[in-house]
Amino acid sequence: MPTSEQDFLDALDRHFPRQGEGVLLGRGDDCAVLDTTGGTHGPLCVSTDLFVEGVHFRRAYFSPSDIGHKALAAAASDLAAMGAAPVACALSLVLPADVDDAFLDAMLAGMAALSKRLGLPLCGGDLSRGPALVLDLAVFGRPGPAGALLRRGTLRPGDELVAIGELGLARAGLLALEAFGRAACERWPAATAAHLRPEPRLAEGQALAGLPGVRALMDVSDGLARDIPRLLGLGAGLGADLRLGEGLLHPEALAFFTARGESPVEALVLGGEDYALLSGVDPAGLSGVLAALPAARHIGTVSAAPGLRVGGEPFTRAGFDHFG
Amino acid sequence: MPTSEQDFLDALDRHFPRQGEGVLLGRGDDCAVLDTTGGTHGPLCVSTDLFVEGVHFRRAYFSPSDIGHKALAAAASDLAAMGAAPVACALSLVLPADVDDAFLDAMLAGMAALSKRLGLPLCGGDLSRGPALVLDLAVFGRPGPAGALLRRGTLRPGDELVAIGELGLARAGLLALEAFGRAACERWPAATAAHLRPEPRLAEGQALAGLPGVRALMDVSDGLARDIPRLLGLGAGLGADLRLGEGLLHPEALAFFTARGESPVEALVLGGEDYALLSGVDPAGLSGVLAALPAARHIGTVSAAPGLRVGGEPFTRAGFDHFG
Repeated sequence: MPTSEQDFLDALDRHFPRQGEGVLLGRGDDCAVLDTTGGTHGPLCVSTDLFVEGVHFRRAYFSPSDIGHKALAAAASDLAAMGAAPVACALSLVLPADVDDAFLDAMLAGMAALSKRLGLPLCGGDLSRGPALVLDLAVFGRPGPAGALLRRGTLRPGDELVAIGELGLARAGLLALEAFGRAACERWPAATAAHLRPEPRLAEGQALAGLPGVRALMDVSDGLARDIPRLLGLGAGLGADLRLGEGLLHPEALAFFTARGESPVEALVLGGEDYALLSGVDPAGLSGVLAALPAARHIGTVSAAPGLRVGGEPFTRAGFDHFG
Repeated sequence: MPTSEQDFLDALDRHFPRQGEGVLLGRGDDCAVLDTTGGTHGPLCVSTDLFVEGVHFRRAYFSPSDIGHKALAAAASDLAAMGAAPVACALSLVLPADVDDAFLDAMLAGMAALSKRLGLPLCGGDLSRGPALVLDLAVFGRPGPAGALLRRGTLRPGDELVAIGELGLARAGLLALEAFGRAACERWPAATAAHLRPEPRLAEGQALAGLPGVRALMDVSDGLARDIPRLLGLGAGLGADLRLGEGLLHPEALAFFTARGESPVEALVLGGEDYALLSGVDPAGLSGVLAALPAARHIGTVSAAPGLRVGGEPFTRAGFDHFG
């Protein structure tokens, strides 16, 4: 484990380029300065996302690289959820005494690889010791080529709901990893990867921001059951009728839940850490969205009647809550 | 303790206004959107600062309100250290099981009061349970009226060093609180307040950004001994000759260290969590800075010879390191 802040900065320097497009002043000063006067004079999106040992991950089956990857992936998904283009990220890191240099190195390498691939240069960091491993990622973005950012709480009855990405697959991965540890990765490679190394859908988010009729967007981090009400707006009095067949599930998830005697469709709705995108689209825009994004699936319709219905039946089970 | 993210957001709503100048989209969505197209089309400053139980504070003698105040004050000091004007802040919070609603309420109230006074509206937040109380504050700022931001690593031999704010006083407060607990507040009110409720010097930072000859700025969070080399630039090969009399110390700090048989001047240099500003000024600009800022004191001169000298003698003791 690094013995000073300088060791930590040196370790960051080994993994992350010091410069990045849009970063006027990077690590090493009191603040990082982001150039918002460049291409777009637009607003800057910021979000922070905690990734806490024992709550969001276990070292028993997350490799150090997985931890670095997922902490950033989960935060970057919040940029995708606005349809934003990536600008930069910053890491606040709490390290317990039993994290050694090799672990830290691998963790930062996992994060750096994703940072590079996503175009999210690390523009700052803070470090403290502490009783558990905690990563807090701040991410910054700006409007993409279409110039628009997509919000929640802007839908009307009759709007169509579209999901981009797998639903329920990461839940299968989590349950498999909890039951079998890292060995689960061999038997359920796609499900465990969905939990350990999710991919934020930045390209799809930006594409949606430029498609006609797209009215709302968020990322599904706590499952459809919890997140659809958030997309609709908690005080809006709206509901949704979902049409979800087992065909929507990845074969691994379908097999996993069937083998456990659980309803695959219910597992799909409960979800958890899917990091899929969930969009609300004007009915006239639906076919365009489905044509433009191969991963998009039409999953239901916004209703004037509150509550969530799946195949016409009220769905009452609560979804995924890290805090619960 | 709140049982869901919604409880937490509700608690935030009780303390923090949802709107703020420059916040196009505040809490409740995936990202907050900051308006950088308003008054200034300039760069946006961002910084994050961890405040971790058992490392940065103890609940034994920090009141909940003190914790909320200091977590934000320490982060905001990084904006002051750039000469930046405040725009917004965001809180990531890890809560252990023994934090109850009353504690959380008082902590947020302490933070909200400072947030309002500084003009740093809370634009986002994230919450997780965890094994210890951790606050990570992200702060965002932009250039002040003068249009400039002040960096480190830009000084030359002969430049003058100026401190704005008390040095060593917060160290006395920390030591008194560690020895006597909250009871220390009666006997050493100024010293304990300097440790428990520091004041970020945003106005002075912005003023410095507009004064002729001011070349560099930072905030002194780890003591002069550690922070002066950072101001000079770790690879610059420069040093500093400090001229520090006991008269620079606050009377409480002078009495405290004298009673302990410690060198008051050494304590001043070691410091720790002063949150004073430290500026480097062209010699021709010195008198203007001292005249403009009543709290500014001339403490030394940048030298071509590396190392730190106090009254001509090399100073070798290391300063304050939370991580050590």
